[in-house]
Amino acid sequence: MEPNPVLKKLGFSPQDRLVIIHTDDIGMCQASVDAYRDLLDFGLISSAATMVPCSWFPSAADLCRGNPRADMGVHLTLNCEWRSYRWRPVSTADPASGLLDELGYLPMTREAVHEHAQPEAVLAELRLQVRLAQQAGIDLTHVDTHMGTVAHPKFVASYIQVALENKLPAMILRLDEQGYRRLGMDASGAAMAVSVVQQLEAMGMPLLDHIIGLPLDQPLNRMALAKQVLSGLEPGVTHFIIHPSKDTTELRAITPDWQSRYGDYSVFTSEEMRRFIQQSGLQVIGYRQLKTLMPS
Amino acid sequence: MEPNPVLKKLGFSPQDRLVIIHTDDIGMCQASVDAYRDLLDFGLISSAATMVPCSWFPSAADLCRGNPRADMGVHLTLNCEWRSYRWRPVSTADPASGLLDELGYLPMTREAVHEHAQPEAVLAELRLQVRLAQQAGIDLTHVDTHMGTVAHPKFVASYIQVALENKLPAMILRLDEQGYRRLGMDASGAAMAVSVVQQLEAMGMPLLDHIIGLPLDQPLNRMALAKQVLSGLEPGVTHFIIHPSKDTTELRAITPDWQSRYGDYSVFTSEEMRRFIQQSGLQVIGYRQLKTLMPS
Repeated sequence: MEPNPVLKKLGFSPQDRLVIIHTDDIGMCQASVDAYRDLLDFGLISSAATMVPCSWFPSAADLCRGNPRADMGVHLTLNCEWRSYRWRPVSTADPASGLLDELGYLPMTREAVHEHAQPEAVLAELRLQVRLAQQAGIDLTHVDTHMGTVAHPKFVASYIQVALENKLPAMILRLDEQGYRRLGMDASGAAMAVSVVQQLEAMGMPLLDHIIGLPLDQPLNRMALAKQVLSGLEPGVTHFIIHPSKDTTELRAITPDWQSRYGDYSVFTSEEMRRFIQQSGLQVIGYRQLKTLMPS
Repeated sequence: MEPNPVLKKLGFSPQDRLVIIHTDDIGMCQASVDAYRDLLDFGLISSAATMVPCSWFPSAADLCRGNPRADMGVHLTLNCEWRSYRWRPVSTADPASGLLDELGYLPMTREAVHEHAQPEAVLAELRLQVRLAQQAGIDLTHVDTHMGTVAHPKFVASYIQVALENKLPAMILRLDEQGYRRLGMDASGAAMAVSVVQQLEAMGMPLLDHIIGLPLDQPLNRMALAKQVLSGLEPGVTHFIIHPSKDTTELRAITPDWQSRYGDYSVFTSEEMRRFIQQSGLQVIGYRQLKTLMPS
């Protein structure tokens, strides 16, 4: 593939390795908000995304309002994956929307959303999540997707539409057909994806070359894992995902993967990681730089 | 006033002092759920109420399902009083309902609900909160009210209706006109209240003689305060309110009154309070006993 035009537009060379160090799930719980406060202060992360349907979203918004260090997007959320702690859509309480499980919460699985959600209900939900984040005073930098649920033929157009309507970059990969096939798409899906992405790029929308995250099921040696993944980054723009959180009673009651989340917090508030990134040759950018490239 | 007919029906004398030791706000946050688990085990509380719109409600329901010690009602909720941590109604996302503030949450104040909420929207919301609690597997014993918001001429009929429809006792005081006047009602309101309560009592609905709680703005000497209030209880049926919670980072991030809440937890998981209650001459009952008196 041709090098990502973002590189040249931002003054980098085709061999440069740009990375967005991106913290997911901010506002999901109290521990994520406390972690975000520290991570913002420490300065290693370069972007984050918040979950508007979750009860701690207002606290995440509080940290962003008027804070020039905050590079915050909306982590568009159509699922609630936990059993003990649950949230609902923001746009509807109507079961006909297909957005609810039998108790009115967002469903636990991607599959449930793909099967039942009405596309127009999804569009309304995504739009309202963005609008509420703006209304809460966040100067949004992008949209991305919780659990990748919108990355589905029924909903991906709504995802792109919401990004364009709000002049926000979206977490979207630019790949060739083989690339999309390797992600599990069939031939026609891959061809369609290439055509959509070429159109978006022609419009000037900034896109990503790579998306990679630290797996949540490997709690041990998180520092070594982070260094290994960051060392292996290829030229182009990488969206690098971590899930940092403080270690609290609340977090442990929500998720068995709390140790990985606390590990991400520890690593990205450490001088060791600061030195590693400084010496890595990586160019750390935020979505705020990508947003400057959005077509008007 | 005549003695409360509940006393005789349950085999007590007119001079007996019955008390429901009732923990509010269960499921409001994680710390409240952890506290409830311990309180159930310890055995001093005799009833509790859960907040269905809050994200930790499913964990509260988990503790109740199949647990014969649980005496759980629905703490019917039309407000979200905190700034950092917020919840929405369960029945609607429609601003026309009057149930939402500008960000879609339940309003912070009683006054906002009294002014804006549509009575039919309130009825639908109360009904759905009860239905969801039943659907989550809780064998409900009663309904009561978060912040007393339904105790308003616009909504009190819906509150009573939801109780009767579900054959559940409700937290309702039986007073004479002077009694209601002392609560701040005007003459016509007090006369109306007497007439409603007489009707309900004639139907056989169990009612309360007193409602008293430990104030949340007195964090110090919680044990002495609890003993003082319990010692002062009068003959009849008292609904005695506490707000127990574990002391966690989450709770402290929600409310400045965390110390009072943790104090209630400490007092009602103490052998000192167990001995005090045993020697107090009080008759501790739950709403489950009152529920047996509900007209069919």
